[in-house]
Amino acid sequence: MKAITFDGRLKLEDRPRPTMTPHEALIRVRMAGICKTDAEILRGYMNFSGILGHEFVGLVEDAHDSLLIGKRVVGEINCGCGVCPYCKKGLARHCPNRTVLGIQDRDGVFAEYTTLPMENLLIVPDAVPDEAAVFVEPIAAALEVLEQIHIEPADAIAVIGDGKLGLLISMVLRLSGADVLLVGKHLEKMAIFERLGGKATTVAEFRSSSRAFSKIVEASGNPSGWELAVSRIAPRGVIVLKSTYQGAVTTDLSALVVNEITVAGSRCGQFAPALRLLETGLIDPSPLISDIYDSRDALQAFQKALSPGVLKILIRWH
Amino acid sequence: MKAITFDGRLKLEDRPRPTMTPHEALIRVRMAGICKTDAEILRGYMNFSGILGHEFVGLVEDAHDSLLIGKRVVGEINCGCGVCPYCKKGLARHCPNRTVLGIQDRDGVFAEYTTLPMENLLIVPDAVPDEAAVFVEPIAAALEVLEQIHIEPADAIAVIGDGKLGLLISMVLRLSGADVLLVGKHLEKMAIFERLGGKATTVAEFRSSSRAFSKIVEASGNPSGWELAVSRIAPRGVIVLKSTYQGAVTTDLSALVVNEITVAGSRCGQFAPALRLLETGLIDPSPLISDIYDSRDALQAFQKALSPGVLKILIRWH
Repeated sequence: MKAITFDGRLKLEDRPRPTMTPHEALIRVRMAGICKTDAEILRGYMNFSGILGHEFVGLVEDAHDSLLIGKRVVGEINCGCGVCPYCKKGLARHCPNRTVLGIQDRDGVFAEYTTLPMENLLIVPDAVPDEAAVFVEPIAAALEVLEQIHIEPADAIAVIGDGKLGLLISMVLRLSGADVLLVGKHLEKMAIFERLGGKATTVAEFRSSSRAFSKIVEASGNPSGWELAVSRIAPRGVIVLKSTYQGAVTTDLSALVVNEITVAGSRCGQFAPALRLLETGLIDPSPLISDIYDSRDALQAFQKALSPGVLKILIRWH
Repeated sequence: MKAITFDGRLKLEDRPRPTMTPHEALIRVRMAGICKTDAEILRGYMNFSGILGHEFVGLVEDAHDSLLIGKRVVGEINCGCGVCPYCKKGLARHCPNRTVLGIQDRDGVFAEYTTLPMENLLIVPDAVPDEAAVFVEPIAAALEVLEQIHIEPADAIAVIGDGKLGLLISMVLRLSGADVLLVGKHLEKMAIFERLGGKATTVAEFRSSSRAFSKIVEASGNPSGWELAVSRIAPRGVIVLKSTYQGAVTTDLSALVVNEITVAGSRCGQFAPALRLLETGLIDPSPLISDIYDSRDALQAFQKALSPGVLKILIRWH
């Protein structure tokens, strides 16, 4: 089968179709999304080699649970050991022995076929098209903010970063009734949120304002976003940190102590609620799609995804 | 009156007795404690000049509320504006316009007399001697951990730092029934906690162990304590950050995101529960007292307090 692999170099090449273990399903990939994490892997993140990709929707081709066969599915990307305390609490995404689809010790979804444990799969409702279902993973990551901190309807929240994740977080947070301010650098991306009735402001305006926020989500991916968050957070406020920065950051931790700021690191979330928000149409990720490529042009799709100003690039496999 | 002042240089000098405003009380200082913050002020922290000191117990000499006169009191050190949203929530310690006793825009307690708003004062029960009452402020700071995060009886918690604050935090946390491990560098300080039935280990042993903790309090005052906390915190764990470090710290913030660590900055706490724990004898700070000096030897007391290995130095004023 055709697959996009990385071993220090990105290639579109032939690979054998994967074989499934008894508890796994074999999935024919229909559509996959290129994520910022994929770009980071190209720069050495996780030291990953193999088939890239973790955002997908596909059809179950084979599985021991025959009820799954033929179903359209998405899948949780973390595969836990099933026996550690984290797995027993339903937190396989923190299992110390986990593999992660296309990120850590497990081939990913930029291929004609992939495998995942059957328990990781969720059946996609008919009302959700492939182009929306493929966003389940990043929407789940956005919803993780709501799992970690209590957003109240009367809250005012700033979201720093107008990339895909910052936009999805803003879209999810506005459902709570909270007053969400997206802080960005790209007027055309900020406009996506404004067209939903949301408010947006530039980094420069936000920096020069004196308004403090008791809740800030930092999703810019840049250490300057961290400093901006620390400078605008109110005493006793919470910064939800979504960005992973390359390398170490030099910062004044004492400001967190004096003002009793809480910082909540935040990564993956749960898929079921993300799928519900897509099914009900409360979240519509379609404005985030910059382009859809056929799998034979997958390398061009990657080039495009890495270009400045581009949002989501999807690859159609079948 | 005699007072210890700082204006770039530490002096014992004569100052006029302070005059009180209508909402303040004039307090004759009986005993005062030298704190790590005082030492930091000598190095330029807060750019403070004036009479130093914020840990005290004294007698009310004069006040518009005549019921206070003659009473032995301790006092909350933060003086809020009374009208801002923080003050209205009872959080004067985060009032943006606050003055802070002996720390920010308000003369402190290393003097024969001091003043504080009457509402800041708490009457000390007869059962609590001066040598214990003078610890109310740091015990309140230790209790702040319990105000910010939920410590459960079955928790295992590591406290990094065997200074005064680390010891008081360990003493307070053990009351919850939790399994508290004090991580220190000074066997004689660790022994204070061990004599209470607590467990202690050296930094070297802690660093080389593979055990992860879901709750860690960092109170070492040294950036190496921060790195140690980050290296030992379990996924989804909470680091309570009590240390204020001089200057910026260079650290890998991405580890907080990948493992979804929460960092809670923590400073001052409430005095009333601290006083209750002293009255009931559940907290006995007396093993933390290294020495008590007469006020005429106050400069020597400071020299001693700044020496390595020393815990609390008290100054008796009357």
